[in-house]
Amino acid sequence: MTTSSPRNAFYAQSGGVTAVINISAQGVIETARKYPKKIGKVYAGRNGIIGALTEDLIDTSKEPLANIKALGHTPAGAFGSCRYKLKSLDTNRREYERLIDVFKAHNIGYFFYNGGGDSADTCLKISQLSDAMGYPLTAVHVPKTVDNDLPITDCSPGFGSVAKYVAVSMREAGLDVVSMARTSTKVFVLEVMGRHAGWITAACGLAAEKVGDAPQILLFPEIAFEPQKFLARVDACVKKHGFCAIGVSEGIRNIDGKFVSESGLVDAFGHAQLGGVAPFIADMVKRELKLKNHWAVADYLQRAARHIASKTDVLQSYAVGKAAVEYAVKGMNGVMPAIKRIKTKPYQWEVIPAPLADVANQEKKMPRDFITSDGFHITQKCRNYLQPLIEGEAYPPYENGLPRYVTLKNVAVKKKLAAFLL
Amino acid sequence: MTTSSPRNAFYAQSGGVTAVINISAQGVIETARKYPKKIGKVYAGRNGIIGALTEDLIDTSKEPLANIKALGHTPAGAFGSCRYKLKSLDTNRREYERLIDVFKAHNIGYFFYNGGGDSADTCLKISQLSDAMGYPLTAVHVPKTVDNDLPITDCSPGFGSVAKYVAVSMREAGLDVVSMARTSTKVFVLEVMGRHAGWITAACGLAAEKVGDAPQILLFPEIAFEPQKFLARVDACVKKHGFCAIGVSEGIRNIDGKFVSESGLVDAFGHAQLGGVAPFIADMVKRELKLKNHWAVADYLQRAARHIASKTDVLQSYAVGKAAVEYAVKGMNGVMPAIKRIKTKPYQWEVIPAPLADVANQEKKMPRDFITSDGFHITQKCRNYLQPLIEGEAYPPYENGLPRYVTLKNVAVKKKLAAFLL
Repeated sequence: MTTSSPRNAFYAQSGGVTAVINISAQGVIETARKYPKKIGKVYAGRNGIIGALTEDLIDTSKEPLANIKALGHTPAGAFGSCRYKLKSLDTNRREYERLIDVFKAHNIGYFFYNGGGDSADTCLKISQLSDAMGYPLTAVHVPKTVDNDLPITDCSPGFGSVAKYVAVSMREAGLDVVSMARTSTKVFVLEVMGRHAGWITAACGLAAEKVGDAPQILLFPEIAFEPQKFLARVDACVKKHGFCAIGVSEGIRNIDGKFVSESGLVDAFGHAQLGGVAPFIADMVKRELKLKNHWAVADYLQRAARHIASKTDVLQSYAVGKAAVEYAVKGMNGVMPAIKRIKTKPYQWEVIPAPLADVANQEKKMPRDFITSDGFHITQKCRNYLQPLIEGEAYPPYENGLPRYVTLKNVAVKKKLAAFLL
Repeated sequence: MTTSSPRNAFYAQSGGVTAVINISAQGVIETARKYPKKIGKVYAGRNGIIGALTEDLIDTSKEPLANIKALGHTPAGAFGSCRYKLKSLDTNRREYERLIDVFKAHNIGYFFYNGGGDSADTCLKISQLSDAMGYPLTAVHVPKTVDNDLPITDCSPGFGSVAKYVAVSMREAGLDVVSMARTSTKVFVLEVMGRHAGWITAACGLAAEKVGDAPQILLFPEIAFEPQKFLARVDACVKKHGFCAIGVSEGIRNIDGKFVSESGLVDAFGHAQLGGVAPFIADMVKRELKLKNHWAVADYLQRAARHIASKTDVLQSYAVGKAAVEYAVKGMNGVMPAIKRIKTKPYQWEVIPAPLADVANQEKKMPRDFITSDGFHITQKCRNYLQPLIEGEAYPPYENGLPRYVTLKNVAVKKKLAAFLL
């Protein structure tokens, strides 16, 4: 094996999936095929990095071309993802040695890891294997997370689509509540994802274009939840507008830093009850303000909603997959393609390389000036930031009234090594 | 006033709104304008029948044409709806006399009521006023309910769109769960509407086209919920397919007939906790089977989701509005335009008049042979029934990444009468 002969690539999906992560996969696979002198086959890990550890590799060259193309409109992780964080090289050298064994056995010289902040850390560690363990490898991280909390990149692929979903859903549900408020529901609560950062909650706010539009209140994890202040706000809103629509992050915390969703619900038998901050908030409104309410928890519906994906997000997701391969063939190790915003109106962006060391294990929360001074809504500055990210529609094809999503064949690569216990 | 001179029409939206009820309004208004010799203006009730009682009428002729057209892509109730059921003529003659006073004052000769089963009853009572109180009036009910529980009509306008929404959402969330199941979520629960009839839950089942597809389990209000049987099924499903996706109706009941959602959750302070059957089911799975789970409650998101409305539903919603006016100008009193299925493949339907007396106060539940014998899924017969109802897409226009929904001017008609206390 010489460095000039083509080596195979490994691609894996990591952490919570999105509506558009498969588009990055498509970008990686299609772009790799444009460099046959540099890159041989693209092997995908079945269920993420676990696929590498267990030598459970998928040969994407065995996948019909139409299926690879269909990744462009199929949500979730087509190769399977996982929540599995590699420990440090010192703590668990065994896993890294195994990875090298698998890479060697399958002539893998490129490592593409499609994930968020934790995964960027894993990718960084892998990128250092080349020196640490004397195995030539080029590792590039492909950014993805609905949480939008990756640093350096202007936004995280996956976020724009969930942002569009929650903004559309809030606008629609808001119209429903307005219609009914005279005699029925007056308060509506929509719970969205975001354990530590309020980006998705902020996106709900895009639905409101003028005073009185839903949502009138947003609850961010960045702002401590104060029940009395909140209830006073709801009360005033219902008195003024006849109804109140609330977007709430799953991760809001009380003044003491405890998650509100863990405020201690128990069922009739005394069992601790699984959270859900929306029912908690709704119940508080009912009890304290005697207002009829409804609540929704979007959960996976939001991050899987390819049917209402943002076109901007779709394009960016492909672009980072493509750039990752282009960086790799240039020998750029330990980098991540990041989105750089050139202009907001009209929106212009480009992909630039970011050093992984600057990306890994960091969380980009909402800047304080993206949240209004009272803590209950987004500022114009935040709107300017968010708006382009939900721009454009990119509908999947339909058959029999349902989106025609692909299930890949995922043909396994023949194993060459002994089994490995996780 | 002679019977040949044009008389005005009253239109009102009643009960829970849908993604397409405004399309029926558009059908009524646009069709009425085609009969200028018979019908003068169309007055809409602000907040449904309450608008008639309080003489709070909206002059739809003052609405820009573009706004009336935009009703065709705007969800929820553009004139406001209400939950307000008229009592019988004997019990509350005062309200009927008031209605007649308002109708007389504004020369209203046509009454169009857009609602579900309860509203059909109200409309029937109004249709009888003509004889009972000597006031000439033609009353036609325009069917609408996401619950799909109206009799006679093959389906209820509004249902097809929520059916499409839940089927799409379940398919998408199911792909998410499959992706993550190896190391994370293994059970997903989606709660949908349907207090007494399982039609919406059944529609979730359309997402599954082959064995193993999500959802593998459906819980209908028509089938008593037996925890042990259910848990055994979940366990077997996870063992076989690696994950389990469940669609559950808000209205499932225990063997003793009690709503499962009212099974007695209390918060840390001992307050009774607002239901939500999905968190209850998910918690049961976690406790008894030790399986990681996620749950979603679609709530208003499902019935307001104009962005993913069914084209069939859109066409039928317009057709019943149009037919209602055509029946009225023919003098057909006390009827409802119903959808008649002519053929399932390819789908053909027509609108026929149904006597309101046969429609009012009846609930069409799922036939037993639409549910598999084990009670956990839908049969092929049910699929054949449901499939055409979600067929076709009818996207709203977008601006800045969001659907451009209309808010009507809703210009008030000048009041002529003294105030009326509800």
